[in-house]
Amino acid sequence: MEEAAPEVQTKVRESFDRQGLMHHLGARISHIGPGRVHIVLPSRPEVTQQHGYFHAGATSAIADSAGGYAAFTVFRPDSSVLTVEYKINLLAPAEGDHLEAVGTVLKSGRTLTVCNLDVYAIRGTDRTHVATGQQTLIQIKARPER
Amino acid sequence: MEEAAPEVQTKVRESFDRQGLMHHLGARISHIGPGRVHIVLPSRPEVTQQHGYFHAGATSAIADSAGGYAAFTVFRPDSSVLTVEYKINLLAPAEGDHLEAVGTVLKSGRTLTVCNLDVYAIRGTDRTHVATGQQTLIQIKARPER
Amino acid sequence: MEEAAPEVQTKVRESFDRQGLMHHLGARISHIGPGRVHIVLPSRPEVTQQHGYFHAGATSAIADSAGGYAAFTVFRPDSSVLTVEYKINLLAPAEGDHLEAVGTVLKSGRTLTVCNLDVYAIRGTDRTHVATGQQTLIQIKARPER
Amino acid sequence: MEEAAPEVQTKVRESFDRQGLMHHLGARISHIGPGRVHIVLPSRPEVTQQHGYFHAGATSAIADSAGGYAAFTVFRPDSSVLTVEYKINLLAPAEGDHLEAVGTVLKSGRTLTVCNLDVYAIRGTDRTHVATGQQTLIQIKARPER
Repeated sequence: MEEAAPEVQTKVRESFDRQGLMHHLGARISHIGPGRVHIVLPSRPEVTQQHGYFHAGATSAIADSAGGYAAFTVFRPDSSVLTVEYKINLLAPAEGDHLEAVGTVLKSGRTLTVCNLDVYAIRGTDRTHVATGQQTLIQIKARPER
Repeated sequence: MEEAAPEVQTKVRESFDRQGLMHHLGARISHIGPGRVHIVLPSRPEVTQQHGYFHAGATSAIADSAGGYAAFTVFRPDSSVLTVEYKINLLAPAEGDHLEAVGTVLKSGRTLTVCNLDVYAIRGTDRTHVATGQQTLIQIKARPER
Repeated sequence: MEEAAPEVQTKVRESFDRQGLMHHLGARISHIGPGRVHIVLPSRPEVTQQHGYFHAGATSAIADSAGGYAAFTVFRPDSSVLTVEYKINLLAPAEGDHLEAVGTVLKSGRTLTVCNLDVYAIRGTDRTHVATGQQTLIQIKARPER
Repeated sequence: MEEAAPEVQTKVRESFDRQGLMHHLGARISHIGPGRVHIVLPSRPEVTQQHGYFHAGATSAIADSAGGYAAFTVFRPDSSVLTVEYKINLLAPAEGDHLEAVGTVLKSGRTLTVCNLDVYAIRGTDRTHVATGQQTLIQIKARPER
């Protein structure tokens, strides 16, 4: 898969590292391409719901971040990105060694960007599509990240 | 506000306590009414995005759980609940001392239930509506909770 | 219910009258309040799906227009409104003498506005909630309406 | 593109012909494949919004029908399909000679099916992606179609 330019990768990674939630969940970025970002979340008790599957909230959190950073790769350097809204369908119980969320820019406009969100559960060589979504993001003047 | 029957409250709290994610985020249930559940999430660095606000993934996670348990209060005792899908609009930056997610059953059918999701950020006496959503849930035969 | 200012009512009605689809479906505006618009759609074979109920597309069309015009009432006079996205849950078969769609502004920002959409089916004195939705709209510089 | 079995095509076309709204809008089915249905809507004043573009309600109506019939192609012969909910993003002004809505089954379960919805505006050889959506449908015991 195509990699994003080095300065874009740096911008994305530095921002991701400031997301306390992603760190707390144990998520990490596994790919940064132009208009496409992957985030991986390993299975552990801290991210489960009551049946032991990945919690929809954890699935959604990495999907939302993957889409946000996918949009970030195509935005102007001096801009920030905020999620306006998203919708997600949970297709199958999310169980496996880890989840992989894939955010992909579908349409990028001057103000708004629309991303596709997909989450897969991986166990060994099995890959199950566990969630699919759509997200709208807005590009705003950069806010200082802390 | 009206409280749910004691056995319903017990069923909800026992299930919530098995959600590793809710515990890991620091969320707790603050109200269980018939068709209505509130979940509170205190502010801390572990639930932030890059600007220091609550991460949309954390906001969504407690909204999803609040809606799921609101549906659970109206379901048959021997059933489980799964989120089919939800959509959430982020209305304002989520900052404050804590978030309160309110899940409310709008329509409950034999198979499917639709809930309203609302999240408020509270700082002192200020209460800001930071997210609103809609969720579809399915009632299934009970699965063992671990 | 509170009525919108006369010039706002005129602006909304003139725009609505240019919507070929609303005329073709037989829809009409029944209320224009500040941040709130109602649209009525009488039952007739031209708006049905295969079981004889109102088609979800007709239900959605009047819901989308009701929300769009609700947003229009709070926008600057020199602006136009476009629907960015919406999500709608169909709660019950839509059958009756007519439908009433209610669009209500939930949050209005400088660029984006979020509306609640609700549709009721009315038969005599019975009123059934048949659809509920959420809509995001964008305020843009006015385009000439034809 | 692969065609659906003749009896499936007949079932879909007969049901579509009973949708008063599709006929009234001037929509027709242009493809019936396994898990995939296309619906075409020619441009005419009866389907416009105030700027002369296709109305979001018309765009959504054919998208909803395309997804519903795509699901119908994979359902048991003795079942009916109802839309539970859908979400649609309007990506660009919908203008052209005609619209083409493409409904595709993404995941089909025993009770629920999830479809992707895409709508394109075609002018001559130009094809613009004007809307994208996600839809949840439920399979129920067949109801008589009138």
